[in-house]
Amino acid sequence: MKLSFKASHHKEDGTHFLQVEEPFHFWSGGSIPAVTLAYETWGELNEDRSNAILILTGLSPNAHAASNGENPEPGWWEPMIGPGKAIDTNRHHVICLNSLGSCQGSTGPGCVNPETGEPYRLSFPDLTIQDIARTAAMVLEYLQIDQLRALVGPSMGGMSCLALLRQDPGIARHFLGISTAARAEPFAIAIRSLQREMIVRDPHWQDGAYTEEDWPETGMRMARKLGMLSYRSEPELRQRFGRSQEVHFSERLFGMHFSVESYLENAARKFIRNFEPCCYLFLSQSIDFFDLSEGYADMQDAFADLKIDTAKVIGVHTDYLWPPHQQKEIADCLAKAGVESELQLLDSIQGHDSFMVDYDRFIPAVAEYLDHIV
Amino acid sequence: MKLSFKASHHKEDGTHFLQVEEPFHFWSGGSIPAVTLAYETWGELNEDRSNAILILTGLSPNAHAASNGENPEPGWWEPMIGPGKAIDTNRHHVICLNSLGSCQGSTGPGCVNPETGEPYRLSFPDLTIQDIARTAAMVLEYLQIDQLRALVGPSMGGMSCLALLRQDPGIARHFLGISTAARAEPFAIAIRSLQREMIVRDPHWQDGAYTEEDWPETGMRMARKLGMLSYRSEPELRQRFGRSQEVHFSERLFGMHFSVESYLENAARKFIRNFEPCCYLFLSQSIDFFDLSEGYADMQDAFADLKIDTAKVIGVHTDYLWPPHQQKEIADCLAKAGVESELQLLDSIQGHDSFMVDYDRFIPAVAEYLDHIV
Repeated sequence: MKLSFKASHHKEDGTHFLQVEEPFHFWSGGSIPAVTLAYETWGELNEDRSNAILILTGLSPNAHAASNGENPEPGWWEPMIGPGKAIDTNRHHVICLNSLGSCQGSTGPGCVNPETGEPYRLSFPDLTIQDIARTAAMVLEYLQIDQLRALVGPSMGGMSCLALLRQDPGIARHFLGISTAARAEPFAIAIRSLQREMIVRDPHWQDGAYTEEDWPETGMRMARKLGMLSYRSEPELRQRFGRSQEVHFSERLFGMHFSVESYLENAARKFIRNFEPCCYLFLSQSIDFFDLSEGYADMQDAFADLKIDTAKVIGVHTDYLWPPHQQKEIADCLAKAGVESELQLLDSIQGHDSFMVDYDRFIPAVAEYLDHIV
Repeated sequence: MKLSFKASHHKEDGTHFLQVEEPFHFWSGGSIPAVTLAYETWGELNEDRSNAILILTGLSPNAHAASNGENPEPGWWEPMIGPGKAIDTNRHHVICLNSLGSCQGSTGPGCVNPETGEPYRLSFPDLTIQDIARTAAMVLEYLQIDQLRALVGPSMGGMSCLALLRQDPGIARHFLGISTAARAEPFAIAIRSLQREMIVRDPHWQDGAYTEEDWPETGMRMARKLGMLSYRSEPELRQRFGRSQEVHFSERLFGMHFSVESYLENAARKFIRNFEPCCYLFLSQSIDFFDLSEGYADMQDAFADLKIDTAKVIGVHTDYLWPPHQQKEIADCLAKAGVESELQLLDSIQGHDSFMVDYDRFIPAVAEYLDHIV
């Protein structure tokens, strides 16, 4: 079978790299000369290639959702994926794709432009969720998977799933959306906008010309702290930390007196150098740009004819960044469009991050759905 | 009657200034050589000096809570205070005190140290809510008010009221707390800590040696935006702005595309030069330090014997910075301590700021209580 694009493939330490050797044109304009897409797989693809589940990820995770024979390192969704687990690799062939733009295997603004030999940085075209969806379609074409058993998308990944369903109706028989949304709304836009402001207002940002030695550490640190505060919840922090104190450091007017401050500082420090500032900015902006209803009469119209059989949408009451009314909107629109659709809102206290933390609630919620789809 | 401290008084444009001409010793150590306290009053003090209501304010407001004969400029709580209004100046003698530390009439770290001729800035002692409470007691002593009819405190002001009641049991017969708390909790501490970090990490902060020409604008701008996001709520921003767009400015990766971004930018610009960075930092930290139960067996113990007759505590369901369980804690502790105590939670969608915005709900809630106290 001939691909509609020129590509090569190699595998390294359990990660597949699909190298598309022709220009990639972005949804909102601009192009780059080539694109690499990183993905991992678990479980066997059956003979009629009908048992594949594709996971599209949130902003931060890479393709390593779970350990595999060649890479035993635990993945970011380790308790969820494997033989007999909620995403059961005995039944499903599971694929997880690293998002375009993230530079964790897949091409992004931190990668070198082969035409110039320099990193793209700000010369990278505006990234949209629609672009991420199109790279997913390219991987499926390469894998000769005409139709997925299911698309699974937590957070930003759910947006990518919806964009893919909209671009290629019928590409999946089932859809599982988790703590996700059909468009970005103003409260979350404002938080992400402020995070981006923190980074680009750091003098070390230098209009994207930062170096390893001269890195926008302060901006990245503060953006991550605000991220943590928007990913977790008030009750969780209250229950975990209360007013316990452990003076981390103290300077006049700004100290780390409280445990909650040290917790955020430690989490932020891990992030500063582990995420490319440019990639963070492009991915963050792609979420804000996303509105599935763009170009349609209304949101309901945008859900017409996605050609899926069933869907489940899971949300969390304490998630104020991707709040429950946004999961309800997806479930309602799908139901009105004739899809057998279920909404489940969980009582997890960990806010938006619950799907990677509160496995006691999330494993049954996911398994109940995926165990019954064929 | 002789005051327990040396003081003088003058009045200017409707504002009273009580100048305490002796050292003020701070609750957690340190002192300043003198202190000025700014307050305004409305309505007549009755003959037996028993009809006074003292309002202690949140972090930002000054003493000008309402217009008066000498200053017709609308105050920050204008719809609430006046003849026949919820805080009825026909019945009550109303006093509003500018908080110590805020430099809006009352002394703070931005004011000049008379001993050096230079602003205090970082040489100002650590400010606590207990210090603000003590300045309130000094004003009451000067006014020869032995017992208030009521203490009214929204937000941080409610903390100051509780600290005053704890320092001087019996100082008030009634207490109205609004969107307030008996201690700072970790989610709100984390937000305020991040705001302080934004300011002190601005290169123009210069360890407090900023000047009019070289001001930490970026830090103040971002701190205010995070403030706005914590004072308002997700549903309010959604209803007001949706995804409406009005490109304010656009640069690569950081633009103001959405109306919600312009709204925050405009609000922040007003704040940058109108609030002294040092004052903001000291006041913000004083909230985090506050825990009424400090030095007591537990929170219930801290509410013992405040010698008030009745109390009402009002909160808002969408307030995630000063969440409803904190108002409930105050009402419950007061009730268990034998005070006739009422909790009312309102359905306002404007979050913490509702008490200065949603007058349709707040005016009746306040009036119902204050109309019946004597």
